[in-house]
Amino acid sequence: MLVIGIDPGTATTGYGLVREDDDGRLAVVDYGVVLTTPDQTMPERLLQMHRQLQQILLLHQPDSGAVEKLFFARNSRTAISVGQGRGVVLLAMAEAGLRVAEYTPMEVKLAVAGYGGADKTQIQEMVRMLLGLKSIPKPDDAADALAIAICHLQYSRTLKIYAEAEQ
Amino acid sequence: MLVIGIDPGTATTGYGLVREDDDGRLAVVDYGVVLTTPDQTMPERLLQMHRQLQQILLLHQPDSGAVEKLFFARNSRTAISVGQGRGVVLLAMAEAGLRVAEYTPMEVKLAVAGYGGADKTQIQEMVRMLLGLKSIPKPDDAADALAIAICHLQYSRTLKIYAEAEQ
Repeated sequence: MLVIGIDPGTATTGYGLVREDDDGRLAVVDYGVVLTTPDQTMPERLLQMHRQLQQILLLHQPDSGAVEKLFFARNSRTAISVGQGRGVVLLAMAEAGLRVAEYTPMEVKLAVAGYGGADKTQIQEMVRMLLGLKSIPKPDDAADALAIAICHLQYSRTLKIYAEAEQ
Repeated sequence: MLVIGIDPGTATTGYGLVREDDDGRLAVVDYGVVLTTPDQTMPERLLQMHRQLQQILLLHQPDSGAVEKLFFARNSRTAISVGQGRGVVLLAMAEAGLRVAEYTPMEVKLAVAGYGGADKTQIQEMVRMLLGLKSIPKPDDAADALAIAICHLQYSRTLKIYAEAEQ
């Protein structure tokens, strides 16, 4: 099972692809960021974001996708801006035929670090360990996206175990 | 000059196409709403919105587009949701090669009714009059989209007059 996690933003959208092998081991497949610059108009930024995400999805053909569930932002203006990027991310995933799961920041922390109070550094260190990497994936937005992908795999596994137990 | 105005929303996205003839007369070309339903997932709703907007843009080939500039919403959750729809609208316009103008609700009121304190009914009545229609265009979101398109044509005209005066 190959999962893409995406952490949307106007300037920087992080993405991370994680595969779970049959033995339950996690392996990183790809990660990085899609960048846009403030000298572009907002429609141009969204267009660039969309095109690059389409290429990443076409290249890796993930089985499912996950994004962070958002409830609040510093202010309405930021929320609208974040929402715009998020809309394009959800669209690209839907176009690629992916089912998209959403997780709250708390769910991501619990799934990755086993502790809802974990801070950013602890999460990043857990991402590094779980994926067997020598150093923490950079930049932060890519590490966040990998955490979301790992979270989705952990919850999918739990749901699978529950489903098996009910049979 | 043919302009498309779009009023984005998750459930209902209004659109309106207005043409300005060489003599400055305005004529409605098309208007309506793109609907999605709550039983669809958000990615499905955005996908449907995107596809229908692409069809409308392909059919009419407008010269430019306009949307309302948003600064605030009832709460962050609403703002993120509105932003998502708006992101897909801006993307569709950029994909169609349109330059996109943004106007505040106040600018729309001033351009359409000549009065920033105009209420919804007054705006709709002015839209009806300016487009020479027998009745107010329905539903409200389509009338709002037509108002945004008219606003863009009025401002473009003013800018053109200024540019000519400077020569």
